[in-house]
Amino acid sequence: MEMSLKALDYESLNENVKNCQYAVRGELYLRASELQKEGKKIIFTNVGNPHALGQKPLTFPRQVVALCQAPFLLDDPNIGMIFPADAIARAKHYLSLTSGGLGAYSDSRGLPGVRKEVAEFIERRDGYPSDPELIFLTDGASKGVMQILNCVIRSQKDGILVPVPQYPLYSATISLLGGTLVPYYLEESENWGLDVNNLRQSVAQARSQGITVRAMVIINPGNPTGQCLSEANLREILRFCCDERLVLLGDEVYQQNIYQDERPFISSKKVLMDMRAPISKEVQLISFHTVSKGYWGECGQRGGYFEMTNIPPRTVEEIYKVASIALSPNVSAQIFMGLMVSPPKPGDISHDQFVRESKGILESLRRRARMMTDGFNSCKNVVCNFTEGAMYSFPQIKLPSKAIEAAKQAGKVPDVFYCLKLLEATGISTVPGSGFGQKEGVFHLRTTILPAEEEMPEIMDSFKKFNDEFMSQYGDNFGYSRM
Amino acid sequence: MEMSLKALDYESLNENVKNCQYAVRGELYLRASELQKEGKKIIFTNVGNPHALGQKPLTFPRQVVALCQAPFLLDDPNIGMIFPADAIARAKHYLSLTSGGLGAYSDSRGLPGVRKEVAEFIERRDGYPSDPELIFLTDGASKGVMQILNCVIRSQKDGILVPVPQYPLYSATISLLGGTLVPYYLEESENWGLDVNNLRQSVAQARSQGITVRAMVIINPGNPTGQCLSEANLREILRFCCDERLVLLGDEVYQQNIYQDERPFISSKKVLMDMRAPISKEVQLISFHTVSKGYWGECGQRGGYFEMTNIPPRTVEEIYKVASIALSPNVSAQIFMGLMVSPPKPGDISHDQFVRESKGILESLRRRARMMTDGFNSCKNVVCNFTEGAMYSFPQIKLPSKAIEAAKQAGKVPDVFYCLKLLEATGISTVPGSGFGQKEGVFHLRTTILPAEEEMPEIMDSFKKFNDEFMSQYGDNFGYSRM
Ligand SMILES: Cc1ncc(COP(=O)(O)O)c(C=O)c1O
Ligand SMILES: Cc1ncc(COP(=O)(O)O)c(C=O)c1O
Repeated sequence: MEMSLKALDYESLNENVKNCQYAVRGELYLRASELQKEGKKIIFTNVGNPHALGQKPLTFPRQVVALCQAPFLLDDPNIGMIFPADAIARAKHYLSLTSGGLGAYSDSRGLPGVRKEVAEFIERRDGYPSDPELIFLTDGASKGVMQILNCVIRSQKDGILVPVPQYPLYSATISLLGGTLVPYYLEESENWGLDVNNLRQSVAQARSQGITVRAMVIINPGNPTGQCLSEANLREILRFCCDERLVLLGDEVYQQNIYQDERPFISSKKVLMDMRAPISKEVQLISFHTVSKGYWGECGQRGGYFEMTNIPPRTVEEIYKVASIALSPNVSAQIFMGLMVSPPKPGDISHDQFVRESKGILESLRRRARMMTDGFNSCKNVVCNFTEGAMYSFPQIKLPSKAIEAAKQAGKVPDVFYCLKLLEATGISTVPGSGFGQKEGVFHLRTTILPAEEEMPEIMDSFKKFNDEFMSQYGDNFGYSRM
Repeated sequence: MEMSLKALDYESLNENVKNCQYAVRGELYLRASELQKEGKKIIFTNVGNPHALGQKPLTFPRQVVALCQAPFLLDDPNIGMIFPADAIARAKHYLSLTSGGLGAYSDSRGLPGVRKEVAEFIERRDGYPSDPELIFLTDGASKGVMQILNCVIRSQKDGILVPVPQYPLYSATISLLGGTLVPYYLEESENWGLDVNNLRQSVAQARSQGITVRAMVIINPGNPTGQCLSEANLREILRFCCDERLVLLGDEVYQQNIYQDERPFISSKKVLMDMRAPISKEVQLISFHTVSKGYWGECGQRGGYFEMTNIPPRTVEEIYKVASIALSPNVSAQIFMGLMVSPPKPGDISHDQFVRESKGILESLRRRARMMTDGFNSCKNVVCNFTEGAMYSFPQIKLPSKAIEAAKQAGKVPDVFYCLKLLEATGISTVPGSGFGQKEGVFHLRTTILPAEEEMPEIMDSFKKFNDEFMSQYGDNFGYSRM
């Protein structure tokens, strides 16, 4: 039998490929795509993809990149009628950083000039120096995370601490690379906070199973949970990483998405630099960022970076070498990254428009975060922590035992069952909590807070109506059906 | 000692990462970058990166993508002064294929509408149907190759047949994934032709070492060798793949780069479809293409696709799932791909300009291929096959024994020694043949044929002068120093 198989027959594929799970585009997404083809209106809240739900791109960066794509326009005498002077100047600036425009492969780490701008941004943000040679540009943060995990994971015996619930990039990549995910649970009852005791327990348990824990992932602000880590919490984590000799992977792609004032974003890098030696000199940290989130939402451009702290030069060289295999990240997204870290300044022609647009988006997101949380909390058997940051709402759905039974009968995980019913009834495409991990016997769903603000009341009404009917259909006897 | 290592210390990195080699951006490239920083003029012929050497992008596709980046321009009353109507229409067309413009993640396989255009292109090219569901768009062909090899390679015992000399994407990726490269030699004396007997020998030898050969790579037209495979040769290869149950990976990124008329490009897919069952129904084939090559040279955009033939649906699903982890290929390059496979038609406003520009580039490349081959063949101890296709010249350098000795003394591989001297003397940045693989005791270098046509005579003169001096310095007694 094995003899007659070909290499791309399912049975003979790399097992790591088969083992990985990616729920954000899993069963629910596939069913939603089918329904859409059949003509049903689908509200895609399964993935943080703002422009797909109507968010407009910021004008200035798009002007600059359009000019970089069409550099011959810079010689057109009519150009000033269509593009503002500061966009033209910026386009010239970025083109001067390339060697051959957007059509030439860049250095595999990204354009040196853009990496310098990223370093300056980090210095302004944290108040500590940042070295462009330790910043690599990537095709989105996802690719950066995958590159680094590829360096860390050697075998199934290597473990990576990952929060649960987590963004499935991590679980999927760890499976793909043949490593072991070591979960640590976030505390729903404490606003999804991180308890260092949980970390210690997770590491001890993994060790007892022969796993070498090598790295720890934090997502701050959190996806799917929306929590923002406090400075004190970050300090504890760094101390823990120092004690346990773990590399910290700081996924900070939502650093601009903050919807409360008590806990502003603080980078892991800043907290690390604020600490005393040996911690500040010892803990290996990789921080990730992207153009996909914030008020940019330029997901389809695929632009990101990672910054390395306390990583030895020989390792940096190895990461560089591996990045070289795929030649270079896409150059237009590198320029978006440059623009993201050095937006128009006060006094620039485009400054006011830029501020108006970006503020408008952020303020609306803040209102939507509130509308969603409140909407969910007004539903029967649904409880939801406030979205402090990021782009998601992650309500817990207290499924009645009858619903759990019905799901079993249908051969579905209970939250998948619920989300499928929700999709069929309302067109709202969510991701079941099981795709992110959750405690045994507890069920969630994740939705983005991205639908247009004016559609939000209708969406929440339609959710409520569905949920009421669901709970009444599957409610326990002492519930709806009592009277 | 191991206890005190951290996960990103060099000693504790994934060994597969450390083992991989990537010569195109290796020692020579790093030295060239250093010299450039010191102010030396460097001619980067180490990588097929046309725009970096002054090739202008085609106007029409850049206009379309610029408009897609700045869709608000489509409402500007002055837009017709700057962009031709067909570019405007095309931009609207491509935007209508997205859900949210270039800033939204697309389906992880790429935009359905663009995959349909690719399928139509393949149908026109080959005369056989092509299914958009079996076409995945990628961030350049490199990423596609890496995805597929990741599915195929399960362990060190899995072997991939790779031509030698080869493009190091293959050797590096196989190392990174922990597989085994099984070399088959191309015959320099037969214009780098492929002899199926060599294949059989390679497979037999690998088997005797316990390796399961799972796939075979062909690069057609060849990099670094420049040969074009004949139809008869492709048929033999497919028959061989059928007998041995190998997946064929057809790297056809240079399909538009053909510089002779005897052997036009024929796709592996067409040859496969022309053959009888069971071969046409059995052989698993993945074909790769890109926007980086041809007369496009849009390397920095990172756009590519692969087409799957005879791959079972469950495997296609697995490949889709893995592609989902990184969300989507960049959308602007997807549009470049759409434009590449459906360029302006006769009668379109931009048609004549498009034809003029693209023909100009291809004809110049053809002349440059000839100039380089002739130039190398006029040099002492240098012999070079004609570049039938692709973008490279791969001369053999017959190094005198004194030079080999000197290289040894300097701790360098002989061809690296030669290429470094060439770089220091002339600024010409090449890649030593050892980076691609070559027979024991035979030495080459690879250069692209991409320097501007008007600079070509000077470059070849400067090469000749260097080579003369080198051969005279290291020449055997009966050589230059005889008189
Ligand atoms: C926590 C987190 N990290 C990383 C990413 C990846 O973003 P990208 O690859 O678009 O930069 C996402 C995307 O949703 C995310 O939610
Ligand atoms: C033979 C071959 N395959 C694939 C590639 C990768 O091209 P890209 O990733 O830019 O599409 C190259 C680039 O030089 C190549 O020479």
